[in-house]
Amino acid sequence: MKAAEKIASLDEIRDLLKYLPPADDVAADVARERQAQLTKPAGSLGRLEELAVWLASWQGRNPPSMERPYTAVFAGNHGIARKGVSAFPAEVTAQMVQNFIDGGAAVNQLCSLANADLRVYEMALEEPTGDFSEGPAMTDEDCAKAMAYGMMAVDSGIDVLALGEMGIGNTTAAAALCCGLYGGPASDWVGPGTGIDAARMAEKAALVDQAIALHGEAPAAPLNDPLEVLRRLGGRELAAIAGAVLAARMARTPVLLDGYACTAAAAVLHAMDPTLIDHCLVAHVSAEPGHKRLLERVGKQALVDLGLRLGEASGAMLGVLLLKAAVACHNGMATFAEAGVSGRSDQD
Amino acid sequence: MKAAEKIASLDEIRDLLKYLPPADDVAADVARERQAQLTKPAGSLGRLEELAVWLASWQGRNPPSMERPYTAVFAGNHGIARKGVSAFPAEVTAQMVQNFIDGGAAVNQLCSLANADLRVYEMALEEPTGDFSEGPAMTDEDCAKAMAYGMMAVDSGIDVLALGEMGIGNTTAAAALCCGLYGGPASDWVGPGTGIDAARMAEKAALVDQAIALHGEAPAAPLNDPLEVLRRLGGRELAAIAGAVLAARMARTPVLLDGYACTAAAAVLHAMDPTLIDHCLVAHVSAEPGHKRLLERVGKQALVDLGLRLGEASGAMLGVLLLKAAVACHNGMATFAEAGVSGRSDQD
Repeated sequence: MKAAEKIASLDEIRDLLKYLPPADDVAADVARERQAQLTKPAGSLGRLEELAVWLASWQGRNPPSMERPYTAVFAGNHGIARKGVSAFPAEVTAQMVQNFIDGGAAVNQLCSLANADLRVYEMALEEPTGDFSEGPAMTDEDCAKAMAYGMMAVDSGIDVLALGEMGIGNTTAAAALCCGLYGGPASDWVGPGTGIDAARMAEKAALVDQAIALHGEAPAAPLNDPLEVLRRLGGRELAAIAGAVLAARMARTPVLLDGYACTAAAAVLHAMDPTLIDHCLVAHVSAEPGHKRLLERVGKQALVDLGLRLGEASGAMLGVLLLKAAVACHNGMATFAEAGVSGRSDQD
Repeated sequence: MKAAEKIASLDEIRDLLKYLPPADDVAADVARERQAQLTKPAGSLGRLEELAVWLASWQGRNPPSMERPYTAVFAGNHGIARKGVSAFPAEVTAQMVQNFIDGGAAVNQLCSLANADLRVYEMALEEPTGDFSEGPAMTDEDCAKAMAYGMMAVDSGIDVLALGEMGIGNTTAAAALCCGLYGGPASDWVGPGTGIDAARMAEKAALVDQAIALHGEAPAAPLNDPLEVLRRLGGRELAAIAGAVLAARMARTPVLLDGYACTAAAAVLHAMDPTLIDHCLVAHVSAEPGHKRLLERVGKQALVDLGLRLGEASGAMLGVLLLKAAVACHNGMATFAEAGVSGRSDQD
């Protein structure tokens, strides 16, 4: 595999997809066997049991570990923000990055609670991407380099990678990605984001419809190519998330996706090859209405539905806590034999 | 208030309901005001915001605290277990209590993860309650003393009380309680519990129908009196949970209820006076099918739905983790002013 820091075109990204290592079925089987021996009725820990087996299968070991969760938050600015699609001004992206560095944001508190390392990746905030309602958001090279930048976040020794984003205007970019990948009127995919009213939401949807018309009419049906969708309608932090998901897939590192924007970035890979996001869980269903529809498209059932719509990996961190619970039970519980607890009386 | 250890009749329990302190609206308002200043779009932490305000209102202080969660698991044995309503033999109750003491059960791992104190309350396991398909489960004194025993679990200095149970046969008792409180055929309330098949589930439902017929025909319509429902159809660990919920209500200690059996015990109080469980959250929806129906009856929306059906406060502990997340954000986040982050650009 070419070193990520040398990648400078989307074709080089395409080359990476030729070998995707499978999950470790043996580790999964060993984990399942252990689950069956633990002091509880079979299946009674529900999804926590599945989580432990899933982690074992991607970590390639039983017992799985949740000692080293790593949280990567990518921040980018969007040309489309100049059209007033957000309730907040674009300078908030950089201000929130400073807040992450100072430890004052939600994700800082949640990482501290979950003992997760947090790193914030600031992506040329002073240079927003192009306004995709008027032209492509990124050049081929810019998009490829943003993906490569995300790939570099995946280090060895990470137990789970929690991904998140910050970028004023990026629910508009996420809606545009979904529209580009799946079609439908923009109103299917556009929501209130940080809290705009119905009138501005209609303007936001009109901009996305305009962008789809513009790019869909470009030569050679570019919206049939998911990476072109990303380049034309996405943003740097979304490309970086797609890159991080891809690198994690190649490294068999399990991933927790956050909300709408984060899942939309991963959906670009899913549209290229659905197995590209087999190693991803979606931690929560966002209150942003397009997220439910998007989860159906990528075939994922979120872990929790608590009405969050903040981004910055805040929902992903709740997923980290649940994975820790799953692993604590899986690794720490006694077996029936160890505890001297009787098995079922109604079966052999 | 009479000291719980002297209570010996259900009438003495009834006497306790005369003064129920309200939640602290001032603390809730202060908490809400803080939420509005934190560096995030208003409402974007969804239910985590509500949880912080709810904790503040019952703890009577802002900031709320989650330093001292306390987990109480009550264990009891049931005469009805002799009728083969569970997949496991009745001796498993005592064996699992030993497993709790030895640290090998799911709840031990989850308490350790959440830094919660765990105490297990063993309730005359060698002396099961009466078989309620043939007569009352408990005498008035036995039921009152079991409730009083549960009341004693509520100490000062608890930030949140997580409740759970262990008792082979107690999903049958829970179904009988629900039938007694809300009516309906037993099949509405009976489920597979630890994992019985359809044929045994039909037998389980028939036993509950038989019990309702027996006790419903007793003189003076006893099933109109929730505490009589508890005495006749419940069990000691369920009475203890009702007692703990009641004492927590009087002490304004917030409570996390676990699954079906635990909620059924709290439903006895709800049937007496719905405000008796205002201080309770239900942590999760159990896979036991009656739980969803019961949540509608008591007007509670669970925090998570992860297919758990283990009991022993395992689901309640996931609630503790989420409360910790809510409090971490509420207490630790910077305000817009502290962080120098711009407010909305579309409003004053």
